[in-house]
Amino acid sequence: MLCVGLDPDPSRIPNHLVQKLGIESAVTSFCREIIRETSPFAIAFKINFAFFEALGEHGFTVMRSVLDALPEEVLTIADAKRGDIGNSASFYARSVFDNFGYDSVTISPYMGQDSVTPFLQNPGTCAFVLARTSNPGGSDFQTLQTEGVPLFRYLANEAVSWSDGEIGETGLVVGASDIEALQVLRASHPLTPFLVPGVGAQGGSASNVMSAAGSGPILVNSSRSILYASADIDFATAAGRVAEETRNILGS
Amino acid sequence: MLCVGLDPDPSRIPNHLVQKLGIESAVTSFCREIIRETSPFAIAFKINFAFFEALGEHGFTVMRSVLDALPEEVLTIADAKRGDIGNSASFYARSVFDNFGYDSVTISPYMGQDSVTPFLQNPGTCAFVLARTSNPGGSDFQTLQTEGVPLFRYLANEAVSWSDGEIGETGLVVGASDIEALQVLRASHPLTPFLVPGVGAQGGSASNVMSAAGSGPILVNSSRSILYASADIDFATAAGRVAEETRNILGS
Repeated sequence: MLCVGLDPDPSRIPNHLVQKLGIESAVTSFCREIIRETSPFAIAFKINFAFFEALGEHGFTVMRSVLDALPEEVLTIADAKRGDIGNSASFYARSVFDNFGYDSVTISPYMGQDSVTPFLQNPGTCAFVLARTSNPGGSDFQTLQTEGVPLFRYLANEAVSWSDGEIGETGLVVGASDIEALQVLRASHPLTPFLVPGVGAQGGSASNVMSAAGSGPILVNSSRSILYASADIDFATAAGRVAEETRNILGS
Repeated sequence: MLCVGLDPDPSRIPNHLVQKLGIESAVTSFCREIIRETSPFAIAFKINFAFFEALGEHGFTVMRSVLDALPEEVLTIADAKRGDIGNSASFYARSVFDNFGYDSVTISPYMGQDSVTPFLQNPGTCAFVLARTSNPGGSDFQTLQTEGVPLFRYLANEAVSWSDGEIGETGLVVGASDIEALQVLRASHPLTPFLVPGVGAQGGSASNVMSAAGSGPILVNSSRSILYASADIDFATAAGRVAEETRNILGS
């Protein structure tokens, strides 16, 4: 159930790689070594688009080289948080599913149904819709009361209803920092895939998440606490060790 | 006050360009000819990231070549609708402001303050936060009552309060399809820059927008009705003609 988040921050990639290879190749090499050491313990990898786009116009070429290094059997998540009118959304969906071949994507739902449904047209894929996020600003709007429930619950109910469950599936992003939200959403959506970020650097506890999330499908993401377990030449083996420990806590 | 939206859809770019140049160069050439004919009538150009990302891993290189064709004096808007936790958001901000040199960006606010503030750290730039959008799904969540007002009003008040008005500025995206929302938001935010999409192909009327929007700063975006004014060899001059007509209705 462990998902390893690839958020390659140039300022935190070990110096020896950057000096030897330059930043673009260092990112590729860093991610490939992390993948090699952590994939025995991971069921999924989440690629954070922000870090690749920040590399400049060749960022997506670097992302492609990282994707190519992933084992066939792992699930891939395009952590892109896209959300636009239907016409534009269909082009974003083409990018993540057709061009890059991702298995799933994260979606920002503020623009409503026609911004999400283009991501539900691809057999065997999943669109993880942001419901309750783990960052400080996650409480600015998501927990507002509306229609008698917090916005995130109302929104999750709507989003799950937009999928017919056959061609493309709706999942939900539910941060590890709000265990009660996780319990409440699981009770309403026992079979919906949950992507749970915020374990590790963002402070969430993996064991608390597992006891709250029940028996439904879940991916628990950890990024920085694995990627930057060591800033030294042993970064990859250190990452593998933390990935194994996290996997063991998750109990699979 | 006219903003021309560059949403280059490969299936709608004139055939003669695609056959002669291949798709990537056809997009560049199409956008450059549109820019040449419409820039006398436009104060801003909005680049829709979806259409460039859909081109594949070289999409951002194509985007760069389009940006290079824009006149110095026009405002550039990265229509990216990004929105992620603070750490990731700062990398998206680096991409649009530092790497590509945009003057402004569109932001999806569902993740709250720390997802927006990294876009308010760049002197002279503006982050247009989605408030009330013009697409059908725009009414799924944005008009829900919360704290006694529709969500879009609550959210707009919050977002505007996050800027100190000096280094980076908060703007609002308010679609042309909800004239009442435009009036209400303008009354609360007389000096906030508004980006108003939805004029033209999405059905909004430019003259209605202008009478609702009062005297505050405003950019009215039109994309498809200008870009695809003709599917033939005269596409650029036809686009220029529609841009001029739209500019005249906007009255500047």
